[in-house]
Amino acid sequence: MTPAAHRLPSAGFSITIRVSVRADASAIGRLTTSVGESGGIVTAVDVVDSDSNNVVVDLTCDTADSSHAEQVVAGLEKLDGVDVRKVSDRTFLLHLGGKIEVAPKVALRNRDELSRAYTPGVARVCLAIAENPDDARRLTIKRNTVAVVTDGSAVLGLGNIGPYAAMPVMEGKAALFKRFGGVDAWPVVLDTQDTDQIISIVKAIAPAYGGINLEDIAAPRCFEIEERLRDQLDIPVFHDDQHGTAICVLAALTNALRVVGKPIGQVRVVVSGAGAAGTAIMKLLLRQGVGDVIATDRPGALHRGMTGLSASWQWLTEHTNKDNYSGNLPGALRGADVFIGVSAPNLLTGADIATMAPGAIVFALANPDPEVDPREAREHAAIVATGRSDQPNQINNVLAFPGVFRGMLDAQAREFTDAMALAAAQAIADTVGEDKLNPTVIVPSVFDARVAPAVAAAVRAAAKGPQRDSMPDRVFREAAQTQE
Amino acid sequence: MTPAAHRLPSAGFSITIRVSVRADASAIGRLTTSVGESGGIVTAVDVVDSDSNNVVVDLTCDTADSSHAEQVVAGLEKLDGVDVRKVSDRTFLLHLGGKIEVAPKVALRNRDELSRAYTPGVARVCLAIAENPDDARRLTIKRNTVAVVTDGSAVLGLGNIGPYAAMPVMEGKAALFKRFGGVDAWPVVLDTQDTDQIISIVKAIAPAYGGINLEDIAAPRCFEIEERLRDQLDIPVFHDDQHGTAICVLAALTNALRVVGKPIGQVRVVVSGAGAAGTAIMKLLLRQGVGDVIATDRPGALHRGMTGLSASWQWLTEHTNKDNYSGNLPGALRGADVFIGVSAPNLLTGADIATMAPGAIVFALANPDPEVDPREAREHAAIVATGRSDQPNQINNVLAFPGVFRGMLDAQAREFTDAMALAAAQAIADTVGEDKLNPTVIVPSVFDARVAPAVAAAVRAAAKGPQRDSMPDRVFREAAQTQE
Repeated sequence: MTPAAHRLPSAGFSITIRVSVRADASAIGRLTTSVGESGGIVTAVDVVDSDSNNVVVDLTCDTADSSHAEQVVAGLEKLDGVDVRKVSDRTFLLHLGGKIEVAPKVALRNRDELSRAYTPGVARVCLAIAENPDDARRLTIKRNTVAVVTDGSAVLGLGNIGPYAAMPVMEGKAALFKRFGGVDAWPVVLDTQDTDQIISIVKAIAPAYGGINLEDIAAPRCFEIEERLRDQLDIPVFHDDQHGTAICVLAALTNALRVVGKPIGQVRVVVSGAGAAGTAIMKLLLRQGVGDVIATDRPGALHRGMTGLSASWQWLTEHTNKDNYSGNLPGALRGADVFIGVSAPNLLTGADIATMAPGAIVFALANPDPEVDPREAREHAAIVATGRSDQPNQINNVLAFPGVFRGMLDAQAREFTDAMALAAAQAIADTVGEDKLNPTVIVPSVFDARVAPAVAAAVRAAAKGPQRDSMPDRVFREAAQTQE
Repeated sequence: MTPAAHRLPSAGFSITIRVSVRADASAIGRLTTSVGESGGIVTAVDVVDSDSNNVVVDLTCDTADSSHAEQVVAGLEKLDGVDVRKVSDRTFLLHLGGKIEVAPKVALRNRDELSRAYTPGVARVCLAIAENPDDARRLTIKRNTVAVVTDGSAVLGLGNIGPYAAMPVMEGKAALFKRFGGVDAWPVVLDTQDTDQIISIVKAIAPAYGGINLEDIAAPRCFEIEERLRDQLDIPVFHDDQHGTAICVLAALTNALRVVGKPIGQVRVVVSGAGAAGTAIMKLLLRQGVGDVIATDRPGALHRGMTGLSASWQWLTEHTNKDNYSGNLPGALRGADVFIGVSAPNLLTGADIATMAPGAIVFALANPDPEVDPREAREHAAIVATGRSDQPNQINNVLAFPGVFRGMLDAQAREFTDAMALAAAQAIADTVGEDKLNPTVIVPSVFDARVAPAVAAAVRAAAKGPQRDSMPDRVFREAAQTQE
């Protein structure tokens, strides 16, 4: 499905091959040469065992994908005097038993500690919350905990793989939440794809959580679920595929326009893919005052005069496409300032990009294979960004969601707002200093430790809610008063 | 509601009082004397600040309950030259922000680690599970994770306090699961008390979990929820209030009967309280071949000839009470060998216990105040146990549930069985060596580190399922084969 040329060996496809080989002087060299000839990259050679005739080594190497891994192994098996004992997959090893755990924050070493954390002491804490349910935001994990909710219907680019197969992604997301935002996130994978049931389940489980992060739920179901939950819950509801993506795209676009020197109010943006991500991006760009947007999807540009549209496409025809362009994507692109793709691989060529206005900005975000080969795009555009980690300007949601939730939880926010989204985008953009900005650096690195705190501060300010509890001073006296 | 005489100062009601006092030689002495005169117990005095005239100290003391804490503070306020600045409650301080957190088990320090734990590497793990959903038991947290599910309808002895107020207990339970069983447990508090909805929610969230622990759900709803979930899920469903209590009671009874030298097949047991716990206890005792059981509740002894009974009470009349006794609880107790109370405080007096057979065994488990004052009971019974931590022979569910789930998860059990319950009870009983057994030691301490592993081993053996994964050897070759 993918041009093999795009596939380079990576750590995501790293395997460890245990081989026994006759222990002559060139033994290890023959192994590493073979891996290299098969296109793999040896990253480690560890001796496991040996006797006077043979040596057993663990050969760790990056490969491009599963079939490439098999080629690498087959190459070794053909060597004389070499016996491949087993092949382990480092990614699978890392996922064994899952990627998150539940850790107690309280010691339970002795009777006194047990009697404070659990019975009988806990009863007073329960009664205090029964009397004032809002105390749950102080006295339970609700203060720092987010549900990562999916029905497994649109997981990564893999489609509708269901709740069991969605778990590794949701666990990974939870790990990222903690690593980058200090947020406790818990995977809630649902064995149902019924909109009403999903809504009623999320409402029922909500008391434990300070926020809901919807994840990888297919459009258009995701819109209804998000909207109805926003109306019915008193905690923020954030759909990362929509809002997280939109925030990151706006941040990247803000800096890209700084580089090419165009004001956002004067640019024309063409978006490919009017699903969850594309729609949210366009709404946020309109909110930020973009000159014009044209939404394109399978039927071409969405325009007034089309019939039988879904509610969200109908909304788009009414709020985008000032000149009511009705052609296809390449046609829309002619003279456009910005292309944003959140759709499918290889829809465009370098020649299409060449038709854009001077100083063109191309965000080709389909993963793993972008809408246009970024190398071709770079020949004609001023700035190119993708979702890939092996290309410059990776637009990655991890820039947004940890800080956004950190800020919302700290502010005890009851909803996620457009003001927060705009503030978060600005904070991400501003993390790249003016002096650091250039066509290959329009977004900060995902490992830039300044990003999440900056986003959290911006979101807190936008929330204008109460600031974070100063831990120990809150339970004095009031707590004693609420015990009974 | 409780005789004050039962209330002693405890760590569960520990407060810290910050006071400023004139700094003469006897200043601190006046404070501690005052606390002692109010019946509090000073456990720490920490100087916080001082100047040439005054000293500010944090006075930590155990009190009996909230009103007692207020008396202690009031006593200090009356002292000359003393200014009470604030009163903090150590139990509330401990619960601030909740008692558990989510911790990543994978490092996310650099791009390679990110690409294995999350995109793009995670996609292969997802696909492997999509192809073989049972792989979720190896490659996700399902292998070690349990949902602690409640609707907040019968929390501790506090009643129907709802999902928010139930959280501190469920978090505490999760902390105990990890501390004693190495099990990752997550609180699922539900903002609904509708049986059908609870069942459909638990079914929907089940893919992430290797077991369900129902907790503090009111009878008789809890029976139907448990039964239907057992039928419909492929992971074990355990209701701690029923099964955990029954296992611990059977363990304690096994050892108590060893002490008094009576075979279980010949004893007559009277149970007060035919709710969730009582019914489960009686079922397990019958399964273990107890001589006879009489169930009593508000209408007196449950017997054949009663009409309009719930399904569970109907079942009890058909399977207990061989002689069809139809009187009240004190009457049932005459000549009985064992009393087990899981009902309400102060239903019996020492005189009632005196009517039991020689070598009487009394388990008065109502919490915090037992069915009979344990001091009175001990005058007439050979063995007395309660649920209280300040009395000998505390029967505490923490002896059972961590080990039971540890064993079921290790065995990848698909259901919780009577055989597991009997094996767990035997394992708990056997942890108290024959040479250690006496009327005041019929159960091990909750801090006895041998208990949970012994219970887990017994449950694993009873499950006769696959033994625990030996971590690294499982992904070799097979993992590579399931990638595509």
